[in-house]
Amino acid sequence: MRQIICSALLGGVALVSIAIHSQQSQPTRIGMLIGIKPDRITAYEALHAASNQGVRDLLDKYHMHNFSIYIQKMDENHYLEFAYYEYTGSDAKADAAALAKEPRNIKWLSQTDAMQIPLPGATGWTKMQEIFHNP
Amino acid sequence: MRQIICSALLGGVALVSIAIHSQQSQPTRIGMLIGIKPDRITAYEALHAASNQGVRDLLDKYHMHNFSIYIQKMDENHYLEFAYYEYTGSDAKADAAALAKEPRNIKWLSQTDAMQIPLPGATGWTKMQEIFHNP
Repeated sequence: MRQIICSALLGGVALVSIAIHSQQSQPTRIGMLIGIKPDRITAYEALHAASNQGVRDLLDKYHMHNFSIYIQKMDENHYLEFAYYEYTGSDAKADAAALAKEPRNIKWLSQTDAMQIPLPGATGWTKMQEIFHNP
Repeated sequence: MRQIICSALLGGVALVSIAIHSQQSQPTRIGMLIGIKPDRITAYEALHAASNQGVRDLLDKYHMHNFSIYIQKMDENHYLEFAYYEYTGSDAKADAAALAKEPRNIKWLSQTDAMQIPLPGATGWTKMQEIFHNP
């Protein structure tokens, strides 16, 4: 009986170790910036509502997690969006290329791109430089 | 002997369960924005270098984790900083008040405040509105 308990515990410990290891592995952190058209903010927020599946499953599929988007009014006609996410995969370029080919993502971007205003010289979100991180 | 192993495993499982529970609890995510004086960026980055302890231990003490700061040039004379962190405590106002009384934090802010340019009407970092989150 004790042997069965020990085996179960050993199995549990093994699974738990894997879980902890994956949680402790260091992801790549991405911070991005883009403008948004003031008259499209309501529609953009509706697309991103918790009740809308959108492309949430595709973010999971391509290892983009803990993904948050914030909005800030800079002046009457100028709003910015700040995005933060953590990439947990092993090949960010390959995952980004695969995501770019997903029909639902292509349709999604056709909607959101029309609402946003890239920074001068950019065609989409601008990746920012990380200058500080503390776990 | 087996009894000792089992006890050790049980102890390990208990500790591991606590670790997993704390990692799975949902933190409060904070996104903040502020300007920075172009001629102070180098000094600001030096203060925040990985090699500088700064107030990293105080962020830990007051449950502010996974803290990242990004910088973005908007034009020749206009730079923005975006900060993201996760609050894992139970009383953000009390922790913020306690942190504000820490002598090393007061000294730290006297250095960084002089380098930054709050948004119009703000006196420090401006908390942004989160409009999307996907775990």
